[in-house]
Amino acid sequence: MAGSDKKRIEISNGPVIILVEPQLGENIGTAARAMANFALGELRLVAPRDGWPNERARAAASGADFVIDAVRVFDTVADAVADLAFVYATTARPRDMQKTVVLPGAAAAAAARRIATGQKVGILFGRERWGLVNDEISLADEMLTFPANPGFASFNLAQAVLLIGYEWFKASGGRDFAEADYRRTAKPASKHEIIGLFEHLERELEAAGFFFPPEKAPSMRRNLRNLLQRAALSGQEVRTLRGAIRTLVEPRPSGTRGGKAEEQ
Amino acid sequence: MAGSDKKRIEISNGPVIILVEPQLGENIGTAARAMANFALGELRLVAPRDGWPNERARAAASGADFVIDAVRVFDTVADAVADLAFVYATTARPRDMQKTVVLPGAAAAAAARRIATGQKVGILFGRERWGLVNDEISLADEMLTFPANPGFASFNLAQAVLLIGYEWFKASGGRDFAEADYRRTAKPASKHEIIGLFEHLERELEAAGFFFPPEKAPSMRRNLRNLLQRAALSGQEVRTLRGAIRTLVEPRPSGTRGGKAEEQ
Repeated sequence: MAGSDKKRIEISNGPVIILVEPQLGENIGTAARAMANFALGELRLVAPRDGWPNERARAAASGADFVIDAVRVFDTVADAVADLAFVYATTARPRDMQKTVVLPGAAAAAAARRIATGQKVGILFGRERWGLVNDEISLADEMLTFPANPGFASFNLAQAVLLIGYEWFKASGGRDFAEADYRRTAKPASKHEIIGLFEHLERELEAAGFFFPPEKAPSMRRNLRNLLQRAALSGQEVRTLRGAIRTLVEPRPSGTRGGKAEEQ
Repeated sequence: MAGSDKKRIEISNGPVIILVEPQLGENIGTAARAMANFALGELRLVAPRDGWPNERARAAASGADFVIDAVRVFDTVADAVADLAFVYATTARPRDMQKTVVLPGAAAAAAARRIATGQKVGILFGRERWGLVNDEISLADEMLTFPANPGFASFNLAQAVLLIGYEWFKASGGRDFAEADYRRTAKPASKHEIIGLFEHLERELEAAGFFFPPEKAPSMRRNLRNLLQRAALSGQEVRTLRGAIRTLVEPRPSGTRGGKAEEQ
């Protein structure tokens, strides 16, 4: 998924991401990259195992230098959250604690509202192996967990940060595209049928010398495919069109049109 | 973010994930893991560079063997989508093509509706370096792109698959938790103030011999912290409570209560 480059890197006034005792520099770096994807700029580390700065973290950040350069390191979770007004503790599953549990979408929406009123919000992520300990969770206001396959619910650190960043970016109104309307009701053709139509049409057009000059052929074909694709044809419509193509190429004997009379 | 284990692994009837000419086995594996996180079970590969099976893919899948074991390999994108009714082509940014562009949330919701009516849906992911070529995109019905920082919009393959899986899982009603209500209006205390309250209270309780037996002290402290945290105190409320603690520990001279008279 290559992308971006020459456009402006945005940094939103988003939640602070706090990694507690991260062990691997790579994980700090990939978390920083995920933050950069979603315009989060403020990363804090609590007692990173290999100290700070960490060149492996910078390398793994794949260019998210603005996040790495701004990292702040703290000795304890209490220090790291001291200036914040509201803190989430991420957990792989709800713990047996008397604390509200929210999902990323709701947390991001609530964070956006709090931040809009000037509050600083932070999100705690635990160690790679065993997450946050209960004493750390008790410093948070709410727990944040991830919807996941109950039998396969383990995320790595960067993935957990990515999901939070994604919801933050959506909640804070990052970008908006026109969403597609969904209104078809007829059963659509299978891709097998659609591709059969494409190839049939192109074969006939090719034979008829339609694709000229030759260097334009690929884009001409693409344009045809795109416009047919856009029609969201049903299987019946595909058969109708293919019948039409056949007929154009090889007109039916007039006998099948309106009787022998016409042939004369 | 450790989690899961002994619970049942779910496999939903979700969209087919199709990786086009993936180069690194690691990326196939981490994509499979992301699929497993969100109960997607059907992975197709088009002409993987290093062939198939690929032991590096299996290792990187971190136990998502049910996805790896079910992989199907195809020579072309056309073959890989032949049995599908609706296909999305992921792109890092909208291309100059006459095709609807949707975001992951809308695509997942539409896919869930289509799948509910018996249609098979697939999602194409391009090569690590340069994505899908236009001829491949023209086989798709719609383009699917990701909201992201305009200056830092590059995702790796597993991250892109993760975001799609996450939205699929949400749209298909994976799990639901009670979401927190948001209703506070008073300005909440900072964590610095809250922690000050915790430590003040615990110091005084410790001195007073409250934490007994000693081995219960950590959980007793945690319970106190959790219940105070749940109150979502304002700065003023913290000051009030700390005043209350001070007063309990060291009762004021009666002169400040109601005059000398009371002291006698």
